[in-house]
Amino acid sequence: MVQQKALDLIDKSGIFITKEEREKIVVADFGLSNIYEEGVQILTFFETDRIAGKLLVLLPNQTEPEHWHPSSGNNPGKQEIVRALWGNLRFYLSGKDNMKEGFIPKGKEKYYTLRHEIIMKPGDQLVFDSETRHWFQSGQEGAVLYSFSTTVRDTLDKFTDPNVVRVTKIIED
Amino acid sequence: MVQQKALDLIDKSGIFITKEEREKIVVADFGLSNIYEEGVQILTFFETDRIAGKLLVLLPNQTEPEHWHPSSGNNPGKQEIVRALWGNLRFYLSGKDNMKEGFIPKGKEKYYTLRHEIIMKPGDQLVFDSETRHWFQSGQEGAVLYSFSTTVRDTLDKFTDPNVVRVTKIIED
Repeated sequence: MVQQKALDLIDKSGIFITKEEREKIVVADFGLSNIYEEGVQILTFFETDRIAGKLLVLLPNQTEPEHWHPSSGNNPGKQEIVRALWGNLRFYLSGKDNMKEGFIPKGKEKYYTLRHEIIMKPGDQLVFDSETRHWFQSGQEGAVLYSFSTTVRDTLDKFTDPNVVRVTKIIED
Repeated sequence: MVQQKALDLIDKSGIFITKEEREKIVVADFGLSNIYEEGVQILTFFETDRIAGKLLVLLPNQTEPEHWHPSSGNNPGKQEIVRALWGNLRFYLSGKDNMKEGFIPKGKEKYYTLRHEIIMKPGDQLVFDSETRHWFQSGQEGAVLYSFSTTVRDTLDKFTDPNVVRVTKIIED
């Protein structure tokens, strides 16, 4: 099952998580029903009304769909810091098309508009302010990364793919 | 030297840090000039104007002095989440005196007023809102912990010990 595959990658990464945390990995398929191609596995370490820390796991060749965290009115929106921990990780942002290692999920060309590729090695970090469109993908080994952010408002997130349903669901395969 | 001792503990903890990060461990002695008793070693992973993530290292039997992060006016002050990663760690908060494993640094009884002890195992987490007075200490092995927080305003921090100088200095021994 998907959760177990995510746990295996977490164990390979060497990061310690508690027994309770091992039971609460969430699988998000974004309503697209093709989890091994588009989706992400999430372990929330903490989440308050001001700050959150999560561990994200990508299975081999899995892609998190292109999205951004909007600001609204006086609210500056979500700022996110990602830190690569283990495996192969490619991030895509706006900028010159230099895509080399990654690929667009089959038939989804119009929902992945960003082609500026950043290869992230363990310890590499990126900071995204709100409104910054991004997507990311792992290579053959999969990837484990940290995501730290200001207040999480997942239901406000915007996705390029109109088929995305931003309800995190726990699925079994 | 102190930085090297901190690196040795980070390596024991198994967490990966980059080569560049290995060079930028900061030793904070709080102006007390007794680093092996009172102080902390800090590696800042990231720090923006909204959010920060740090790795804190306590040498064996080292104590971080009692302090709190004040709020001011409309600013809600710093919220901090600590997550124990490795070693022996004791946190002290206000509450019933149940102090058992820890000790007050010699001659400093009046600067450590909190005696409610929480033993933190790896993966254990605590959330402090601003104004929450706290101090922490490691046991014989030392300790490595994460500290995540909203905006850092170290110069506003308040310490029970009036001798503390809140300027982080890099010292050599």
